[in-house]
Amino acid sequence: MNNETITVVGLGSMGFGMAQSLLRAGYTVHCVDIDPARAEALTRDGGLATPLGDAVADSDIVVLVVLNAKQIETVLFGPQGCADAMRRGSVIVACATVPPAFAREMEERVNSLGLLYLDAPISGGAVRAARGELSIMASGAQDAFDRAAPALDAMAANLFDLGREAGMGSAMKAVNQLLAGIHIAATGEALAFAASQKLPLSRVVEVISQSAGTSWMFENRAPHVVEADYKPRSAVNIWLKDLGIVTGIAETAGLPLPVTESALAQFSAAVEAGDGQADDAAVVKVYARAAGLKLPGEA
Amino acid sequence: MNNETITVVGLGSMGFGMAQSLLRAGYTVHCVDIDPARAEALTRDGGLATPLGDAVADSDIVVLVVLNAKQIETVLFGPQGCADAMRRGSVIVACATVPPAFAREMEERVNSLGLLYLDAPISGGAVRAARGELSIMASGAQDAFDRAAPALDAMAANLFDLGREAGMGSAMKAVNQLLAGIHIAATGEALAFAASQKLPLSRVVEVISQSAGTSWMFENRAPHVVEADYKPRSAVNIWLKDLGIVTGIAETAGLPLPVTESALAQFSAAVEAGDGQADDAAVVKVYARAAGLKLPGEA
Repeated sequence: MNNETITVVGLGSMGFGMAQSLLRAGYTVHCVDIDPARAEALTRDGGLATPLGDAVADSDIVVLVVLNAKQIETVLFGPQGCADAMRRGSVIVACATVPPAFAREMEERVNSLGLLYLDAPISGGAVRAARGELSIMASGAQDAFDRAAPALDAMAANLFDLGREAGMGSAMKAVNQLLAGIHIAATGEALAFAASQKLPLSRVVEVISQSAGTSWMFENRAPHVVEADYKPRSAVNIWLKDLGIVTGIAETAGLPLPVTESALAQFSAAVEAGDGQADDAAVVKVYARAAGLKLPGEA
Repeated sequence: MNNETITVVGLGSMGFGMAQSLLRAGYTVHCVDIDPARAEALTRDGGLATPLGDAVADSDIVVLVVLNAKQIETVLFGPQGCADAMRRGSVIVACATVPPAFAREMEERVNSLGLLYLDAPISGGAVRAARGELSIMASGAQDAFDRAAPALDAMAANLFDLGREAGMGSAMKAVNQLLAGIHIAATGEALAFAASQKLPLSRVVEVISQSAGTSWMFENRAPHVVEADYKPRSAVNIWLKDLGIVTGIAETAGLPLPVTESALAQFSAAVEAGDGQADDAAVVKVYARAAGLKLPGEA
């Protein structure tokens, strides 16, 4: 058993699994979501469905697994924001993908209320979230890191300590998303190219996975195309958000990102074609449509 | 020992190692290169430095490890071409990266002389070539494949049989190069982005290698940037050639390749900046220059 009490705010596919991992580790966990049914579902695993203000007032750590910077700001400082209700010295663990400058700004604002802030973006997907096997890219004050670390370990297979400055975790996450987004678009481009040359796509997955052209995303996403399975594990829409953050950061730094921009344009085209909610592997359809190619599962 | 005699034409970093692998496997190997010193160097390993015409007249298999389609055509059918000197029934193994249509055309031409043709592009780099651990993506007539297979096995860790039609091996190689080229440019883009955010690049390599943003090329090339080591293992110039082949094939198929095109543009910029002969990881310098960033090794 564990003596600490944690609030998890945001019980989507990631937050839900993270709350389960914390419950397995013996924490007392308050579960909060806009949809009360999500919190209620976790009571079967021992979670407590508690209103936000009461939850954070009772917690040592508040984990925010919301969608973006705006939602972090709203949860903390909006009209029903909970920052004022938190105990002095408690730690906010912010898991959304955000611009590094936003993380630094939030750190400053919560510090001024006597709270600690850990910039802690996550990666790994819903399955690994439920198993407590996420990657967490964390940075922030030593106190914030040390006090959150045991809980982070309960949720993560890889806990990366990126130093004593909020924003570095978000910067590393942005590097990861830049690469991952490009690799998904490249996977679509490569599979469409292979289809245009009449290569059997299942064979392409086998051969490329053992060759220098492979990537984590290729090995993960290409089978979705081969199986014509576009139920969303991670949706196309996510990449408009995440690559938008990446290009926004780069613009501020005066750095052109032409390959990222071109990948982003393919995800935008997929959204325009109505595939925003589909699995991100559906970006391959943008190419197939352009060249009149048939993909697996198409008559 | 092995009864067969093989000619290897083209003793660059790949062909040299492939000839060594064949010698280790007990083949009699005629070694041919424009630079006689390259063939001479292999005599220490038991290779024979033989003029091209005599070499192929004495060979069961002729392995062409030249640079491109034009060189294949010249070696076979140019003014000093050797196709006419080859024994009927012997096998040409063509290892350059070429358009699939070129492979089919060569197959037809050599078949009409009573010769067999195997479309067999290679990948893996010089170190793996010397160890007999290449990947070979082979396609062609059953006879051609069966007769070349033992020799291919002596040179390869992965021998992929891509079917009974010349061109399919080249198509698969093009898919691999499309992905590999994008991933190298993406690696440069990601490292420049990380540098702009003041992330230590050695830490980026550690973290990303364990995250969903990783790729074979990231793990192989990013350390070159961290170590500021741009001595060419694979040069920037190769990508102008290989991605040029890829985009040429796609154009014929009516398929737009925007992400590939944008990667190719970065390699072109690297060549224009004088880095054509440098290791392809030097594409990162295109980004660093554009944003005024310092890379490892720069004062």
